[in-house]
Amino acid sequence: MIVVMKRNASAEDIDHIVKNIEELGLKAVTIQGTERIVVAAVGEERVAGINSLESSPGVDEVLPILAPYKLASLELKPEPSTVHAGSLTVGNGQIGVIAGPCSVESEDQLMETAHAVKKSGASALRGGAFKPRTSPYSFQGLKEEGLKLLAEAREQTGLAIVTEVVSPDDVELVAEYADVMQIGARNMQNYRLLEAVGRCPRPALLKRGPSATVDEWLLAAEYILDGGNENVMLCERGIRTYEAHTRFTLPLASVPYVKAKTHLPIVIDPSHGTGHTYMVPALARAAIAAGADGLIVEVHRNPDKALSDGYQSMTHEQFEEMMGKCRRIAGAVDRSLGSEG
Amino acid sequence: MIVVMKRNASAEDIDHIVKNIEELGLKAVTIQGTERIVVAAVGEERVAGINSLESSPGVDEVLPILAPYKLASLELKPEPSTVHAGSLTVGNGQIGVIAGPCSVESEDQLMETAHAVKKSGASALRGGAFKPRTSPYSFQGLKEEGLKLLAEAREQTGLAIVTEVVSPDDVELVAEYADVMQIGARNMQNYRLLEAVGRCPRPALLKRGPSATVDEWLLAAEYILDGGNENVMLCERGIRTYEAHTRFTLPLASVPYVKAKTHLPIVIDPSHGTGHTYMVPALARAAIAAGADGLIVEVHRNPDKALSDGYQSMTHEQFEEMMGKCRRIAGAVDRSLGSEG
Amino acid sequence: MIVVMKRNASAEDIDHIVKNIEELGLKAVTIQGTERIVVAAVGEERVAGINSLESSPGVDEVLPILAPYKLASLELKPEPSTVHAGSLTVGNGQIGVIAGPCSVESEDQLMETAHAVKKSGASALRGGAFKPRTSPYSFQGLKEEGLKLLAEAREQTGLAIVTEVVSPDDVELVAEYADVMQIGARNMQNYRLLEAVGRCPRPALLKRGPSATVDEWLLAAEYILDGGNENVMLCERGIRTYEAHTRFTLPLASVPYVKAKTHLPIVIDPSHGTGHTYMVPALARAAIAAGADGLIVEVHRNPDKALSDGYQSMTHEQFEEMMGKCRRIAGAVDRSLGSEG
Amino acid sequence: MIVVMKRNASAEDIDHIVKNIEELGLKAVTIQGTERIVVAAVGEERVAGINSLESSPGVDEVLPILAPYKLASLELKPEPSTVHAGSLTVGNGQIGVIAGPCSVESEDQLMETAHAVKKSGASALRGGAFKPRTSPYSFQGLKEEGLKLLAEAREQTGLAIVTEVVSPDDVELVAEYADVMQIGARNMQNYRLLEAVGRCPRPALLKRGPSATVDEWLLAAEYILDGGNENVMLCERGIRTYEAHTRFTLPLASVPYVKAKTHLPIVIDPSHGTGHTYMVPALARAAIAAGADGLIVEVHRNPDKALSDGYQSMTHEQFEEMMGKCRRIAGAVDRSLGSEG
Repeated sequence: MIVVMKRNASAEDIDHIVKNIEELGLKAVTIQGTERIVVAAVGEERVAGINSLESSPGVDEVLPILAPYKLASLELKPEPSTVHAGSLTVGNGQIGVIAGPCSVESEDQLMETAHAVKKSGASALRGGAFKPRTSPYSFQGLKEEGLKLLAEAREQTGLAIVTEVVSPDDVELVAEYADVMQIGARNMQNYRLLEAVGRCPRPALLKRGPSATVDEWLLAAEYILDGGNENVMLCERGIRTYEAHTRFTLPLASVPYVKAKTHLPIVIDPSHGTGHTYMVPALARAAIAAGADGLIVEVHRNPDKALSDGYQSMTHEQFEEMMGKCRRIAGAVDRSLGSEG
Repeated sequence: MIVVMKRNASAEDIDHIVKNIEELGLKAVTIQGTERIVVAAVGEERVAGINSLESSPGVDEVLPILAPYKLASLELKPEPSTVHAGSLTVGNGQIGVIAGPCSVESEDQLMETAHAVKKSGASALRGGAFKPRTSPYSFQGLKEEGLKLLAEAREQTGLAIVTEVVSPDDVELVAEYADVMQIGARNMQNYRLLEAVGRCPRPALLKRGPSATVDEWLLAAEYILDGGNENVMLCERGIRTYEAHTRFTLPLASVPYVKAKTHLPIVIDPSHGTGHTYMVPALARAAIAAGADGLIVEVHRNPDKALSDGYQSMTHEQFEEMMGKCRRIAGAVDRSLGSEG
Repeated sequence: MIVVMKRNASAEDIDHIVKNIEELGLKAVTIQGTERIVVAAVGEERVAGINSLESSPGVDEVLPILAPYKLASLELKPEPSTVHAGSLTVGNGQIGVIAGPCSVESEDQLMETAHAVKKSGASALRGGAFKPRTSPYSFQGLKEEGLKLLAEAREQTGLAIVTEVVSPDDVELVAEYADVMQIGARNMQNYRLLEAVGRCPRPALLKRGPSATVDEWLLAAEYILDGGNENVMLCERGIRTYEAHTRFTLPLASVPYVKAKTHLPIVIDPSHGTGHTYMVPALARAAIAAGADGLIVEVHRNPDKALSDGYQSMTHEQFEEMMGKCRRIAGAVDRSLGSEG
Repeated sequence: MIVVMKRNASAEDIDHIVKNIEELGLKAVTIQGTERIVVAAVGEERVAGINSLESSPGVDEVLPILAPYKLASLELKPEPSTVHAGSLTVGNGQIGVIAGPCSVESEDQLMETAHAVKKSGASALRGGAFKPRTSPYSFQGLKEEGLKLLAEAREQTGLAIVTEVVSPDDVELVAEYADVMQIGARNMQNYRLLEAVGRCPRPALLKRGPSATVDEWLLAAEYILDGGNENVMLCERGIRTYEAHTRFTLPLASVPYVKAKTHLPIVIDPSHGTGHTYMVPALARAAIAAGADGLIVEVHRNPDKALSDGYQSMTHEQFEEMMGKCRRIAGAVDRSLGSEG
């Protein structure tokens, strides 16, 4: 950590900050610049209270040097991780494709889409049973009944099941039916939930919060890893910006950045990342070209009748066509897409 | 809701959208423009699946007309609400001031600050016992022990207690000790928690999520109101923007906007809203001048030793001085600040 | 345009707004909803003063229906446009690649890079002679001397020259040497400059301003088109968001969006769009996969000695490698990249 | 400047960066941390090419220490500056109020408003003659004819004239008529214009660009100061964020921040900063409470007929009422507002 002093900081201020740094167990190195003094705090800077140093007299700014996460970092584990969950493989040259409806609405609806996405080469089935909805007046999901339908769809198609868990109390129940525990964007900093998923034997898909920095996202992953669950997939689904013609802005630079910082695989969600069906194929192709390890996309047999997210869901035919194009891009980056065998 | 058709939409597309609108129980009115056709969907537009209309063929855009919330709206209850919780009154010309440390760290620390803020005119004491921390390596709070210290501080000072609850499972426990249940920014869309607080007899202070729209924030309030808890205070604490010299950007336009849309009182948090102690007094004064119904500020006896948020905490002396200046501004807008009697 | 009235709007308010709409030459259609009245203003809504309707009594909101631009719209010209400028073709299945240094620094530097990018298959050479620099203490460019060197590089390599013009007074001079007039992000709303380039016979490359909406960007293009210059290429170079590990956030959803709205080709700038050399290849590949018509990238023989933008410049070797990979992606979307012959 | 090396940086990388730093004329100090090496570059870091150091091998990140501006900094001139221009004083406890229409539309319109704002206590008259308009189809201003009307209004009321200049070529002409040269948000980084205003004898009002950082804004001011014009007023008018119910987000934290960094006075524009007339008074009061040195507001005799910006313009009566309330806030912070004598 680098502490930048104000131009008019006194010798007493310097002594004070040096003492504060040493009390936190770090070593202080003072550098006299031409205009200002900076004090480097050398050592483990991930300690409680370190940010409060900014309040010491004469301090202008405090600049962290070390990444705030450890277990997620590439420095700790230099080889990329691969996550396996039933039919789904994410990482190691294999691009996993998770597809299915936003919400499980009925047996009929789910089975039809499950078979369709399987046929087009998806590696796993998505579907929400517990839905976190912005409005209390929106469809809230079929809950356990939905989980049972998902398990039935796995039975019929062999596809691994990816579904969201919204509360620590539900983790055990969801883990009974699901292959992958999805943590939604709104719950990225629901630390109790992260801790519960950290203790759970199922792999986790951790969506980025729409205003989370990548550091905050990786710290959320750190909670899960720290709980003992080593199978964490990151999922970029877009951030909130002033751009209004898309629901969110999908920053594909997250792919190279995350790969430079962490060993965790990264999945891209072009459905939420754009919010409009017609944009999904272009961003899905782009994600693969950028080096993403997976895709998660919303598919519905009848988007204009969907109980949720119809505006960003693809029909079965659109998904089939997109998969063909994505497979060509995967080939051009020497990777395989979905279940190609 | 207004459905804007594409320029080349066919008669069949129009028929289809009209049918879809009618199936949702609304009436469709078609307007032939010079360049495009728009179809107005007249009726209750807060129904599941309505946004999926965007997926109908020939549709360019769907524009909502009605606010998505009802119970929170000024249209339903045209008089501003006032919230009372022990020594704290927020609304009706009374500007409540909630002050205290970010975290309860020790008995000694809490009592000293409790007495100090009481003396300077605060209306309530804040202090975190359950802390949602970005990093698993940060101080996580004293939990129930912290709640007991807060209750003891109320005993000694008469100040109402405002403290955060982070999980539905803790609502009952926190409600035993606290006067106001604070829902933090990271949990604004933790719907299970909102529902639990909705069933709880204590008033709620609902912080805005850092990337939430005001509509999403009011919909979160709607979850609490819908559960039967009518005592909801909104708390604006800043949004995430590209601005990097403040921790968040504090949009004071939220005050007039919220007052034009809802009857709920609004509290401003200039500590999180700026992230730097030296900026807090200016923004506190501005909040009052803008018409806010309350303030929540972080105060610590020794900010540069605080276990959390020291960089945005005021000393007791700084708080005392700020209160004097805020009182003058309150007078200039014909309101009273804190416990002035 | 749709005018949404407040719930309590009076009959008089309705009459007033209807009159105001008619005075602007539009037809007013009143729709009685269950909760509110909306008034549709039918006709040409691109008229001076129309936004001021929001100030009429009883009005809650004004929602535009028509795109604010005309000449740029796909509705006016339904076929995609292709731009040709010497060796550069952008559009019609041909992905143009514009490469070269941020600034022209010296003859030696420019020629070396010009030959290198030509060899790797670039279609045009970029290089700044007039530099708009954030700081008055930064390198400001070689000005006309730089233009002459660029012309000399064209002479030697056959590559078309793309260079920035920063002032209406320089348009004539720059047009003497350049094949494409680049309008930088900071000047996207420098309307005098847009008008001057609109009157100029050279194609224009119009960068998006870092906080411009796509509508504002297309309106800037409209200024150029309206001046008579039909050869406008859009260039997405990233928007400003809270994301701090990239210089800007590159929204590749601009590609499908722009293609759905306008006939103008779109070029992506992954150098400014990320601000870090190591991210450029991933985003360049992604741009092509998303359907972009061109790339513009910064290449320098010695990035860590560059007088500007070294942190986002590629070496000649990195560019060569990137081109190979981009060519494979281009093939996978059935397009050709750069000068492949 | 602090150069953070990657964990695996080699001794050769360290030597290389040290050499690069020394070639730029700075001194390199190497600090061996527990996890990484950082190299401090001591000396004048405002030199061309310094940011390119990030491209040196083994470098992870480059953190600037010194502010990039000099003449604008409080370190160079520790006392706040006051700007005088005819009837307008901004700074030194005097809050200047600049009011008037967005555009000069006609003699009648301008004179009526000039007299009205004068009567309510405004210190200066604003009015646009050269209008930078987003759309080529919007009203573009009366140009020199508008300047003449502004001079006539000064004649009649004694109010100083604040008007925008949009092109370097117009600086001389505008300076003939105006007392203050306004540089609009869209032109904040039009460096030719900044240079021209820097050579002009009239004070400048420099609006912040909607996506400019404060550093970029102060560097724009630096261009003007560097040209010899010492009378620069900063004007915060809001930044672009995801917030959609206001036109821009007005960050009042700019007031304490700017005052901690620079001697230049700061004026707030609550009209553009909110984009809705009904929000203007709340934000105007807040600006004064936060410590702003001035206000600039749009006033029109008939907002719903205004040729531009009617939705954010106040009527004469609304302005009169707002001034009364603002005067009380000014008193509560021991300052005087407008022409109170």
